[in-house]
Amino acid sequence: MSKDYAVIGLGRFGGSICRELSREGKQVLAIDIDEAKVNEFKNIASHAVILDSTDEESLKEIGIHNFEHVIVAIGDSLQASILTTVILTDLHVERITVKAQNDYHEKILRKLGVDRVIHPERDMGRRIAQNIISNNILDFLDLSDDHSIVEVKTGKKMIGKSLIDLDIRANFGCNVMAIKSGETIDVSPSPEYVFKPDDILLVIGSDDDIHRFEKHLIIDEQ
Amino acid sequence: MSKDYAVIGLGRFGGSICRELSREGKQVLAIDIDEAKVNEFKNIASHAVILDSTDEESLKEIGIHNFEHVIVAIGDSLQASILTTVILTDLHVERITVKAQNDYHEKILRKLGVDRVIHPERDMGRRIAQNIISNNILDFLDLSDDHSIVEVKTGKKMIGKSLIDLDIRANFGCNVMAIKSGETIDVSPSPEYVFKPDDILLVIGSDDDIHRFEKHLIIDEQ
Ligand SMILES: Nc1ncnc2c1ncn2[C@@H]1O[C@H](COP(=O)(O)OP(=O)(O)OP(=O)(O)O)[C@@H](O)[C@H]1O
Ligand SMILES: Nc1ncnc2c1ncn2[C@@H]1O[C@H](COP(=O)(O)OP(=O)(O)OP(=O)(O)O)[C@@H](O)[C@H]1O
Ligand SMILES: [Ca+2]
Ligand SMILES: [Ca+2]
Ligand SMILES: [Ca+2]
Ligand SMILES: [Ca+2]
Repeated sequence: MSKDYAVIGLGRFGGSICRELSREGKQVLAIDIDEAKVNEFKNIASHAVILDSTDEESLKEIGIHNFEHVIVAIGDSLQASILTTVILTDLHVERITVKAQNDYHEKILRKLGVDRVIHPERDMGRRIAQNIISNNILDFLDLSDDHSIVEVKTGKKMIGKSLIDLDIRANFGCNVMAIKSGETIDVSPSPEYVFKPDDILLVIGSDDDIHRFEKHLIIDEQ
Repeated sequence: MSKDYAVIGLGRFGGSICRELSREGKQVLAIDIDEAKVNEFKNIASHAVILDSTDEESLKEIGIHNFEHVIVAIGDSLQASILTTVILTDLHVERITVKAQNDYHEKILRKLGVDRVIHPERDMGRRIAQNIISNNILDFLDLSDDHSIVEVKTGKKMIGKSLIDLDIRANFGCNVMAIKSGETIDVSPSPEYVFKPDDILLVIGSDDDIHRFEKHLIIDEQ
C-alpha cells in the first residue's frame, strides 16, 4: 500500500477525517483501541487496525514512520494523546497533526515539537456562536480579528432589487462575492442581478461593515 | 437578567459557544451537571448553574422557556441529549440548537421538531481533511458540493507578479476575493497588486477550477 495517511482515534472527529480522506481517494490507515470502532471503518478506510497507540512496539510493527502524515484524534485521555505523540516524534514521523483538548494540552504538544495543533470543538463553537448571534448568518469564516466572510439569506428589502440598485459596496463597504440560488451558485454575479426570495449571499468585509449591511438590508423588522 | 441564551453542556464545544457569546457581550446562562464545569464558567457567563437537564422540574425552575435560544451541547450520552430536547420542546422553547452525535441522533432530533442540528466534529473533520490533502490550503469553506472558498499561501511562481499578470479569472475560472498581507487584509484588491512572499489569498470558485489554480500556481515543485 502507498503509505499516505494514518488516523489514530476514530471518534466523531477522527472518524470524519478518515471518511473525508477516503472519499477523496486517499490511502488511509484507520487505528483505534476499540474493536467496534475499527470494524466500522473496515469498509471505509483502505486499512483498519485495532491497537493501543501508547504502545511503541505496535506502532513500530505497522511501520508508522513510513506514513506521510499521522493525525492523532484521541480526545478525552490527555495522557494517551501525549504519549502517542511522544512516540510519533521519537519515530521521526514527518507530519503530525494532533487534536488538543485545551490550551494546556496544546502547550505540551508544542513543546514536543508538534506544529499542527487543532481545536475542532473550540473553533466550531466560535462559528456556531456567531451564527446564533446573527440568526441570518448561515455560515461564517473568520478572516482576521475584524474581517469575515458571511453567508446570509436575502432580506425582504432586497427582493426585486438589483445589485446596482442596492450598491452594497458604496453604501456599506462590503462586497457580495457570490449568490446561491437554489442549486446554482454564481461566483461572478452581474450588477444587473435581481434578488429573489431565498437567495443566499456570500459577503466579505470588515465585521463593522457586515454588521451595518445586515442591520439595514438583511434583518427584517418583526 | 435579560433572558438571551442558555447553553446546556459545558464540554469543549458548548464551553466555546458560551465563551464566544459572552465575549460578544451577550447574556448567557451556563448549565452543566458537573460542578467543576459550572465553576469554570462562573466568571465567564453571566450566570452558571449546576443541574441535570433531564430533570424537567429543574429546567422549569430556572424558567428555561423564557430564554430566546437554548443550545444543547451534551455529546456522549444520546439519552440525556434526547431527553433534554424533548423537555425543551414540551416547554415551547422558541429556538433550540442541538449538537448531534451521528446521523441516527440527528434523525431523532428532527422528528422531535428541532430545526438546528449541528455536527461540529464531523464538519471540522471534513475541513481538516481538506487542509491535510492540500498542504497549501489554510482554511476552507464549503459553499456547495462543487464550490468552495479556500485560503492559500502564494506559491513561488506568483511572487513579484500582479493580479493582471496572472489573470487568474481568465486562466483558471476562479476569483481572488481578498489578500492578507501581514496584519492587513484587502477585500477589494487592485488588479495592479504585486504578490509578496507569505501573502495569503482568498479564492472562490468551483472545486475543479480551484484545484487547477492550486496545481499551477500554488503548489511548488519539490
Ligand atoms: N491509546 C489509544 N489507542 C488508540 N485509540 C485510542 C486510544 N485512546 C483512545 N482511543 C480512541 O480515540 C477515539 C476518540 O477518543 P475520545 O472519544 O475520548 O475523544 P473525543 O474528543 O471525545 O472524540 P470526538 O472526536 O468524538 O469528539 C475513541 O474511539 C477511542 O477509542
Ligand atoms: N444530563 C445532563 N445535564 C447537564 N449537563 C450534562 C448532562 N449530561 C452531560 N452533561 C454535560 O455535557 C457536557 C458535554 O458532554 P460530553 O463531554 O459527554 O460531550 P462531548 O461531545 O464529548 O463534548 P465536547 O464538546 O468536549 O466534544 C459535559 O460537561 C457533561 O457534564
Ligand atoms: Ca467525548
Ligand atoms: Ca472576524
Ligand atoms: Ca468532541
Ligand atoms: Ca466544496
